[in-house]
Amino acid sequence: MNRQELISQIKTKASFLCIGLDPDIEKIPEHLLADKDPLFAFNKAIIDATHDLCVAFKPNLAFYESRGPEGWISFEKTVRHIHEKDPGQFIIADAKRGDIGNTAEMYARSFFESLPIDAVTLAPYMGKDSVEPFLSYSGKWAILLALTSNQGSADFQMLEDAYGKRLFETVLSRSSAWADESSMMYVVGATQGSLLKDVRKLVPGHFLLVPGVGAQGGSLEEVVRYGMNDDCGLLVNASRQILYASRGRDFAQAARNEAYKLQQEMQVHLKTLWE
Amino acid sequence: MNRQELISQIKTKASFLCIGLDPDIEKIPEHLLADKDPLFAFNKAIIDATHDLCVAFKPNLAFYESRGPEGWISFEKTVRHIHEKDPGQFIIADAKRGDIGNTAEMYARSFFESLPIDAVTLAPYMGKDSVEPFLSYSGKWAILLALTSNQGSADFQMLEDAYGKRLFETVLSRSSAWADESSMMYVVGATQGSLLKDVRKLVPGHFLLVPGVGAQGGSLEEVVRYGMNDDCGLLVNASRQILYASRGRDFAQAARNEAYKLQQEMQVHLKTLWE
Repeated sequence: MNRQELISQIKTKASFLCIGLDPDIEKIPEHLLADKDPLFAFNKAIIDATHDLCVAFKPNLAFYESRGPEGWISFEKTVRHIHEKDPGQFIIADAKRGDIGNTAEMYARSFFESLPIDAVTLAPYMGKDSVEPFLSYSGKWAILLALTSNQGSADFQMLEDAYGKRLFETVLSRSSAWADESSMMYVVGATQGSLLKDVRKLVPGHFLLVPGVGAQGGSLEEVVRYGMNDDCGLLVNASRQILYASRGRDFAQAARNEAYKLQQEMQVHLKTLWE
Repeated sequence: MNRQELISQIKTKASFLCIGLDPDIEKIPEHLLADKDPLFAFNKAIIDATHDLCVAFKPNLAFYESRGPEGWISFEKTVRHIHEKDPGQFIIADAKRGDIGNTAEMYARSFFESLPIDAVTLAPYMGKDSVEPFLSYSGKWAILLALTSNQGSADFQMLEDAYGKRLFETVLSRSSAWADESSMMYVVGATQGSLLKDVRKLVPGHFLLVPGVGAQGGSLEEVVRYGMNDDCGLLVNASRQILYASRGRDFAQAARNEAYKLQQEMQVHLKTLWE
């Protein structure tokens, strides 16, 4: 999906919500455990109940890989189901990969060629040649970790160079020269609040994938205030808040209610932006 | 496997060779493609032909994951086969993971609890809480990327702070406070040559996993000169040079010959160290 198509999806749905599909076998409703593929059964119900309220789905690979080959099957079925149910969805494989040349190429191929995935999250530590293989597919995206939402983000991402420039800022400025806003996005945690202002100074036009709203304590209002640009430029992710709104048989409806609340908030912000 | 056991394996085998099991379907001998699981058939032949010459095997997950669920099965069979064939092998899942809290825990569990894997490679960008979950298993290891062997390593790893300290040095000094040399190792590329000296100033006692000898141009002699410590402290990885020494029916014997050459060189260095 290219940039214009993504923006038009955001307009049509009046939403910039991304739903993180992180199905934890220990947290999904008990009655699903009898299913042959409980992870997929859970995801399918969530997708079917929420897809008109969001523009993106983001399965985090860890939740699938930790279940071995079986988990990979759940992952692939999930991705294919999203695409069949709603071809307008932007699908992000949250893989946080970072490997060199031929290995990175293999990942790019497996995500972009054999599955309808639009974007892959990547770690920047290994530099340009670990990101480049993901940039050569038209309409596909690399989403680079810049400023994450966890406590450990302070360990290295905030390190200052001799000129007071922090590592995440160097990551933004250098990597934005590798590809423009049509094929690169950045992960910037909502918990970083006003740091989004500093991010926007360096990458005014890029889309930002923003985790950390809800369960992790980030505020949607703050994200919009400091992070929104003229094209919206935001995909705000929520996972646990939606997925585990209820653990009963009403879990899909409860998930929809949470997604709806977020979409309604987003709609107000988008009106202010575009009307 | 704990540190003493690893050192004793190195003594017994007179080798600190790690063989990277990176089976590329486009490079393995053609006659194996008829096998139901060509990746495993290839790995099994390599493992059986070389295990007495090396102390570690390092499958790189990308080569398996890029083949979907099927690839995961090849990976698991490979790991189990190494352990059955030679329980003295140190098994490294080259996964370069880096994710937060509960996600990292899932990875740690899947690698350390359901498979006989000794160590997992990790990316440092997300900081302490992305590494910690891997440090709570006795006899298991986290191997953190410090200085990689690729060109892109210069993009961020060499950035200097106000005191002239480079990012890889900060990664080494901070992270070595999270765990001692009994559960943490570092990836330092052989192509970085004399920088190994700077690495050793910060982590004199830790084991280093050193890729980049052979196909990538690093020199074993230089790695030993600048990187070896009193306990050897090195696992030197070779992949392509061994795996693809021949693409004919003699590939396993050809792989053995290459591994033997490296082991013989290593034996000389270990003699100098320990006799």
